[in-house]
Amino acid sequence: MTETATARRSRITPEREAELYAAVLDLLREVGYDALTMDAVATRTRSSKATLYRQWGGKAELVAKAIRFNKPGSITDVDTGSLRGDLHALVQREDDCAMEQNSALMRGLFMAVHMNPELLQAFREFLVDPEMADFQRVIQRAVDRGEVRADNPAIEYVVHMMLGAFATRTLLDELPPTQEFLRSYIDAVILPALGVRTV
Amino acid sequence: MTETATARRSRITPEREAELYAAVLDLLREVGYDALTMDAVATRTRSSKATLYRQWGGKAELVAKAIRFNKPGSITDVDTGSLRGDLHALVQREDDCAMEQNSALMRGLFMAVHMNPELLQAFREFLVDPEMADFQRVIQRAVDRGEVRADNPAIEYVVHMMLGAFATRTLLDELPPTQEFLRSYIDAVILPALGVRTV
Repeated sequence: MTETATARRSRITPEREAELYAAVLDLLREVGYDALTMDAVATRTRSSKATLYRQWGGKAELVAKAIRFNKPGSITDVDTGSLRGDLHALVQREDDCAMEQNSALMRGLFMAVHMNPELLQAFREFLVDPEMADFQRVIQRAVDRGEVRADNPAIEYVVHMMLGAFATRTLLDELPPTQEFLRSYIDAVILPALGVRTV
Repeated sequence: MTETATARRSRITPEREAELYAAVLDLLREVGYDALTMDAVATRTRSSKATLYRQWGGKAELVAKAIRFNKPGSITDVDTGSLRGDLHALVQREDDCAMEQNSALMRGLFMAVHMNPELLQAFREFLVDPEMADFQRVIQRAVDRGEVRADNPAIEYVVHMMLGAFATRTLLDELPPTQEFLRSYIDAVILPALGVRTV
């Protein structure tokens, strides 16, 4: 890292960064993505807009990083020794109440993503790609243990399967994606597609 | 059917109904759901608003039925003798060009569904529920043939799996759901989850 980059980063402490992300999520819940302004974030957090732009470039990046920061731990921290154990543990990280709040937020943001290409880009770069890379590591461990065949064609569709569960559950069923629902979906769909026996 | 109901129905011929649905889809593509008005439909199709309301109740029902009408045939017409054959035949019904056009339309409508509870209700009643009932019949035939176990837990998640493929492909991958993609997803995810061997 160059000295300039270090200097730029060090202007915001980790505590301050956490505060800022929490304020961004509050504002998102209150007004939604389209009505959220950098002015409002600056006012709410008593920071200068210049600082915000220097640190995050823009609204899309700030929002994507705030959501990423809010996610409980990295999924690669989980290592139970079996793919089923790992996937169930992932579901366990957020309780049903947090999951319902976050899914309401994400539902709103999916609509915003449709209208704002720069938000889709930021979501991919700071949220989906890192999450997927983590997921691939969890799957890779299962391949290394001999649980999943390296050439199983469902490996590349793990995100499609997971997102399908969330989207259908919240949009069509209009039910929150509870832990119980996700465990049942993992056992009924994801593990069998990956060729992992669940009984 | 009562005499009144017959009389009411007979005011619009099947040809006229098809014309009206085509006009509604054109308008949807041009202006989107929110800006679509019954006035515009009446003007475009040279019908009276009273006729439209008498026949369809309102905008949400008219839109849902127009989309349903536009779908190529009922999936229960397809009976190839195997679940894989049936699912691949379903994908074959629409060519990639039609699929891309329709997925653009549906993507826009999913956003509208989020904002309009009456549209979600009409989608469920006139589009999702009948399509799902058809799907269940295709699966039931596979159960009757002994291809799928009646107690396979993935049966209730077929719509989650399918919708996940569409949503993730169009939203995250920003690619149209081509026939090739859907066939690959059916073979990699849906059939293995249902316990059907694909090789």
